[in-house]
Amino acid sequence: MTDLETRIAQVAWNSDGLTPAIVQQWDTREVLMLAWLDAEALRRTLTTGRTTYWSRSRQEYWRKGDTSGNIQRIHEARLDCDGDAILLLVDQTGPACHTGTRTCFDAADLEAVDGLAVPESDAE
Amino acid sequence: MTDLETRIAQVAWNSDGLTPAIVQQWDTREVLMLAWLDAEALRRTLTTGRTTYWSRSRQEYWRKGDTSGNIQRIHEARLDCDGDAILLLVDQTGPACHTGTRTCFDAADLEAVDGLAVPESDAE
Repeated sequence: MTDLETRIAQVAWNSDGLTPAIVQQWDTREVLMLAWLDAEALRRTLTTGRTTYWSRSRQEYWRKGDTSGNIQRIHEARLDCDGDAILLLVDQTGPACHTGTRTCFDAADLEAVDGLAVPESDAE
Repeated sequence: MTDLETRIAQVAWNSDGLTPAIVQQWDTREVLMLAWLDAEALRRTLTTGRTTYWSRSRQEYWRKGDTSGNIQRIHEARLDCDGDAILLLVDQTGPACHTGTRTCFDAADLEAVDGLAVPESDAE
């Protein structure tokens, strides 16, 4: 195996052959989105320097930005301690979210998903 | 339903009743770990102000820090645009990772999972 294939083989894929990828803007450290990778999506991401994900709803690969122009270039990719989550540090062009917001967690315009409640007091 | 229950009902749980939670240090914006929540783990997290997760391997709840002392206090919890990922902004006491490193993605001591390769050139 190539060195790349050895590294891809370290990932502990789930029963669907997928692992979640946390996508973070490399310099500001904003968390932009969560997406899913299979081995081929990870291979394409690491060999092209642009993120390719697996769409669970459409059951197909999608290269981020091909439709919107809002591409992500890879700065760094890290595997977690037990191999079942990946952190992608990227440089995001424009908004990451299909709703037009910078991040998928920036749902200021979507009252229904405008964050979850957190109690004022966190006393145990 | 209480307001809290209304919000919990917004989450698009997967077929196992779980959703991934990205856990980020609220001020430095380090991504600490990825963990899994079900509705009850989210409820406990939001009502106590301390993170409780669902362990897929042990099939039980675990409140972060009960064994290690390395607790996480919640600052903010956000749902993503399509409701199937949660971002938890926390204040992490000590290391987040069971290996003793600050984050689960800081595998400097684990050669086998010391990051994935990224090509020098990202030309398409």
